[in-house]
Amino acid sequence: MTTTTTHAASAPNAVTSAPLRWPRGFRASVGAAAIKKPGRDDLGLLAMPGGATAAAIFTRNLFAAAPIEVSRRHLKDSRGHASAVILNSGCANAATGPRGLANAQEMVDAVSLALGCAGEAVLVNSTGVIGVQLPMDRIVPEIAHMAARLAASEDGGSLEPFARAIMTTDTKPKMSARRIDCGGGRSVHVAGVAKGAGMIRPDMATMISVLATDADVDARTLDRILRHAADASYHRISVDGDTSTNDSVFALASGAGGACDEALLAQAFREVACDLAKMIVCDGEGFERSLAVRVSGAATKADALKVAETVASSLLVRTAITGGDPNWGRIVAAAGRAGVAFRPNDLELHVGGILIFRDGEPCPADRDAVRAAFNGSHVDIAISLGASEGAEAEANSDTFLSCGLTTEYVRLNADYTT
Amino acid sequence: MTTTTTHAASAPNAVTSAPLRWPRGFRASVGAAAIKKPGRDDLGLLAMPGGATAAAIFTRNLFAAAPIEVSRRHLKDSRGHASAVILNSGCANAATGPRGLANAQEMVDAVSLALGCAGEAVLVNSTGVIGVQLPMDRIVPEIAHMAARLAASEDGGSLEPFARAIMTTDTKPKMSARRIDCGGGRSVHVAGVAKGAGMIRPDMATMISVLATDADVDARTLDRILRHAADASYHRISVDGDTSTNDSVFALASGAGGACDEALLAQAFREVACDLAKMIVCDGEGFERSLAVRVSGAATKADALKVAETVASSLLVRTAITGGDPNWGRIVAAAGRAGVAFRPNDLELHVGGILIFRDGEPCPADRDAVRAAFNGSHVDIAISLGASEGAEAEANSDTFLSCGLTTEYVRLNADYTT
Repeated sequence: MTTTTTHAASAPNAVTSAPLRWPRGFRASVGAAAIKKPGRDDLGLLAMPGGATAAAIFTRNLFAAAPIEVSRRHLKDSRGHASAVILNSGCANAATGPRGLANAQEMVDAVSLALGCAGEAVLVNSTGVIGVQLPMDRIVPEIAHMAARLAASEDGGSLEPFARAIMTTDTKPKMSARRIDCGGGRSVHVAGVAKGAGMIRPDMATMISVLATDADVDARTLDRILRHAADASYHRISVDGDTSTNDSVFALASGAGGACDEALLAQAFREVACDLAKMIVCDGEGFERSLAVRVSGAATKADALKVAETVASSLLVRTAITGGDPNWGRIVAAAGRAGVAFRPNDLELHVGGILIFRDGEPCPADRDAVRAAFNGSHVDIAISLGASEGAEAEANSDTFLSCGLTTEYVRLNADYTT
Repeated sequence: MTTTTTHAASAPNAVTSAPLRWPRGFRASVGAAAIKKPGRDDLGLLAMPGGATAAAIFTRNLFAAAPIEVSRRHLKDSRGHASAVILNSGCANAATGPRGLANAQEMVDAVSLALGCAGEAVLVNSTGVIGVQLPMDRIVPEIAHMAARLAASEDGGSLEPFARAIMTTDTKPKMSARRIDCGGGRSVHVAGVAKGAGMIRPDMATMISVLATDADVDARTLDRILRHAADASYHRISVDGDTSTNDSVFALASGAGGACDEALLAQAFREVACDLAKMIVCDGEGFERSLAVRVSGAATKADALKVAETVASSLLVRTAITGGDPNWGRIVAAAGRAGVAFRPNDLELHVGGILIFRDGEPCPADRDAVRAAFNGSHVDIAISLGASEGAEAEANSDTFLSCGLTTEYVRLNADYTT
């Protein structure tokens, strides 16, 4: 009887939620170097004493920040292995020229010296103001203190201090975790933290995420799993369409938990990344409502994404969402300018499950119900393009997440110096 | 002595400003059908009693409004000839299905009957709310009255009543005119009106412009001149990036003024269109500051446009402009994500003539001067990509116009139903 119950609660191969802790093989410590604000943690050091395979996705912005350049090189030189990640908030170390590059390298050297690992085994990134140099005189000594505290830290400790240390204008730390039951009482964990970028405050640059697992997985597989997870999450959200100089997602696998089925590991990574992506969209001062735009029945999956992204990013749609305004004309018009071929008369629009538009004209619908669908804390927009049918229509679909554009967003992004 | 002076003031072949009147061969009348608001003119009828060659550029939105469909067909059937243009404000006749199409056709039929011209010689467009049907019972009789008033109207009369009748949320009528001295005391005129779309109010759709000349020019040449003018003006401005269902520009040439050098005519069209495009960017509640982004030294001219448009459309740049915030990091970051190849260290940024960024780092500059450059009613951003040099760098350049994103824009576009 008891056995059955236990079994149902954690069936083999199930991915379930888990405590917000680092997986085995990870130790974290934080520090305060008055980069962000005196007395606030603004440095996070994550160490993998037994080593880890590593993968990363970096911003495609040509003005990639100095630490991105260093991390990209280290990941290549080490062929996807890392022993530590050092992050700071308060300063992006972007557009900082040769001195910025030297500073990023000095952060790495300080970690390498303190932990006794190779320099190329250290990954680094920064987030905060662009065009300002890091206060290295305060950062280097603080790294030594953090390394000393690491030894006393708990293996697999809480995610929260690290998640808080990398916050800039985030109002909440962003954390998520999953447990994969591997059968026979063995389980592995996937945990992640992120910072950014609900409504980005001026000069802040931008999204950083660290995803960690104790599964034993080679660097190439980890890279594939990471790209798959990012495609379903970070690449499907938009706040203001600006790709920052510091955007990055790191994936690390300590191997301390043993082997794990790749499909289940991919699922867990995807779930953690999607949780964090949603937290990013829904955080930030100025946030009022989120929206999800699901497009199906496109001629190709790429077409579905293009329409979903165009509608979710449209300023007119996003302001209508903020106003709780049943302004479906803007949704249809945004779909029509996405640069994707479909017959306008074949488009069907549902909002909150209510049919709004079909056969080229508005449908009779209950006004109050429509108004309610536009007025929730989350608005679901579903567009069928009618350019494919049946199973193909389902396959040629995609979803994009965004949020209403608010006056508070503009105020925050316009008025901070005055 | 007097001769010399006169000569200098109006040298042959010069394009000069001109009174805000329609050219010869054009008569306009306006009417009120309570589409927009009772008692306000919301219909404009422009007639070319001697006929005119015609060209047009229409929205590329798949959900082109019903009148766009009709005008596109007429222009094709007539091989670029027209005797009248009928426009209304207050209702876009977009997303209105078969009934909307019948209504657009009925507007055309009413004009054709009243003026005794072929149906295919009538062009039509609408602007205003999407998804609502036109009040045909009021429009058709009003068209008959307007046609009757046309007979008594002045050939080459004032642009203003027509420019006012097509306004939606515009705060000012938009008009511009040029005179081309053809030598021997003969001159031809180019005049234009436009409506839209500074900060578009909800559901409003969107930009309409009519450019008219009394020069004698065939339809094919007129089409070429129009596209050239639109490329330099309407295709180089952005307010919210949404391409509406009703965007259109009409060009009409009555021929009443005789032949004109094509290059001069093209110059006059371009100047009139650029005037009107600037008025569109600078109109609308919520407008505070305009910005111009000039990019030079690109590898190709298309690259220059892509970077200029990306920077001018960036929400982070546009909110910084509103705040008068010397936030050059956002400008550089937007250039870096435009999808155009250049070496980041070769980029040079000037704002208001002041060098801000070079060799991958900020330049020492007078803080007060920089702040002043970001704080005017207009902000000039100049970016040199360093991907081409000398005359080629000048040729591979382009300019894009936009305006600061303001809280008032969001308020207007979000809050109108609540």
